[in-house]
Amino acid sequence: MRLTIIGSVALDSVETPFGKKDDALGGSATYSAISASFFSPVNLISVVGNDFPKRYVTMYEKRNIDTTGLEKKDGKTFRWKARYEGDMSHAETLSTHLNVFDGFRPVIPPNVKSTDNLLLANIDPELQGWIFRKAKPQGLVACDTMNLWITHKRKELLKLLKQVDLFLLNDAEARQLSGEENLLEAGKWISGKGAKMVVIKKGEHGALFFKDGLHSVVPAYLLRKISDPTGAGDTFAGGMTGYLSQQRKITNSILKKSLMYGSILASFTVEKFSAEGLLKATKADVNRRYKKLERLVKV
Amino acid sequence: MRLTIIGSVALDSVETPFGKKDDALGGSATYSAISASFFSPVNLISVVGNDFPKRYVTMYEKRNIDTTGLEKKDGKTFRWKARYEGDMSHAETLSTHLNVFDGFRPVIPPNVKSTDNLLLANIDPELQGWIFRKAKPQGLVACDTMNLWITHKRKELLKLLKQVDLFLLNDAEARQLSGEENLLEAGKWISGKGAKMVVIKKGEHGALFFKDGLHSVVPAYLLRKISDPTGAGDTFAGGMTGYLSQQRKITNSILKKSLMYGSILASFTVEKFSAEGLLKATKADVNRRYKKLERLVKV
Repeated sequence: MRLTIIGSVALDSVETPFGKKDDALGGSATYSAISASFFSPVNLISVVGNDFPKRYVTMYEKRNIDTTGLEKKDGKTFRWKARYEGDMSHAETLSTHLNVFDGFRPVIPPNVKSTDNLLLANIDPELQGWIFRKAKPQGLVACDTMNLWITHKRKELLKLLKQVDLFLLNDAEARQLSGEENLLEAGKWISGKGAKMVVIKKGEHGALFFKDGLHSVVPAYLLRKISDPTGAGDTFAGGMTGYLSQQRKITNSILKKSLMYGSILASFTVEKFSAEGLLKATKADVNRRYKKLERLVKV
Repeated sequence: MRLTIIGSVALDSVETPFGKKDDALGGSATYSAISASFFSPVNLISVVGNDFPKRYVTMYEKRNIDTTGLEKKDGKTFRWKARYEGDMSHAETLSTHLNVFDGFRPVIPPNVKSTDNLLLANIDPELQGWIFRKAKPQGLVACDTMNLWITHKRKELLKLLKQVDLFLLNDAEARQLSGEENLLEAGKWISGKGAKMVVIKKGEHGALFFKDGLHSVVPAYLLRKISDPTGAGDTFAGGMTGYLSQQRKITNSILKKSLMYGSILASFTVEKFSAEGLLKATKADVNRRYKKLERLVKV
């Protein structure tokens, strides 16, 4: 099954203790789409300015990421500037320029079918909700978010939560949204708001998955060195939903595997700057890490 | 196989955000022995004063914990006073009174055989080393420690490390001992110092197990509420080595299971104050949680 992904395509300028990159390819939809494309064909819906390098569009297309829905507008591409310090658990945003994303309301391209799966990658929940209503999805609907929207668009986010099958957020965001310090309580609270399945991502400590209560605990694929955590969550969401889109039937075992693949894909992202690690990884690399992680958890 | 456990027996006064207990049963050997006794008969080697309540000795004996090696000396039992705040990740020691433990050099009782397994529960590495030389162990030798000894008895600890099969410590201690921030690097460093197997405990995030490199990742059994983290690590060490002592042959699968049981037993300890939760748990409770954890991790 195809997976439609709506989210941001951006040019990121990021500094970590291990280096610095300016105007590198980024955005939630970028990470999610590249990650998902390891498993499933993707329709990308987003917008870029006329400064967006053409080679990235070529790269998407080569990876079976259909860019019919990637609008090109007069103006500049969305830009995000951030710095990570210390253990890099938190990104300090230095500037955000929405640019062409300001007021963006995409046209759903004709090749997007309502029977496709849908990933509402991290972006303003108002825009996520708008797409949801337009796309009238009948497949799996997944939604990712971030602290910014929990602070400023809480109402819109909670409204959206009632309609999604799978909701992904990190531990700090789960605590912020639910007001619960304990992650089991946070997961229960969020599930109670309507999402059938909830993933709480814990970075290097893996992820908790809730479906009728705590369903799975999945470790991260540990690395000797992390260069840049940007896009780890987006990559997890894309890998998980991409893997699920490849399946005929979603069983408990398939759900576990999708979480493991989310973990694995994220490990390639954080290993290098920007999307470099993810772009360099081959299907064989992914499967090798998957087998290794499977051995580490197998009882 | 029997398991010999040497460590502290103490009366603890602990305050957490959830309550306060004075002179409650504590000590590394107490937690480790009760935990191990779910699986294997235990020989306890330690010392108490004449103020040590007799009911605790009766309790040990009822649980198949042989107290021939529990010396009774004139004086007061070892006392530890501490406070946990916030997320309770760190105990603030308010006072430590060694009392009868001051200069303690135990007599190895005749029922302890050199073919038994040995757990050197958390205590001064000089005393751990002394016991090791006296006991001349031919079975599995495990060793637990804490930040205090890494700071003040580093040389003795590193010497001991060369001789143990299994070394257990928590994430902060692993970083402190190795000087490595990354836990994969820390595990590698510690393994390089001689311990054949290393467990790095990460509290609510589970544990990493190293044996010829990273061997297993085991989650914690998550709880809605933690009352008192005291003894969690000791309980893990006791549960793991107790389970291993029950086995004829130590395979990779048995090692994984022993880690899972360590995790499970620790969950009973932190759930209530002092050793109350561990003492209340039945074998059926332990197995129920084990099955649940197994379901959560199974791919």
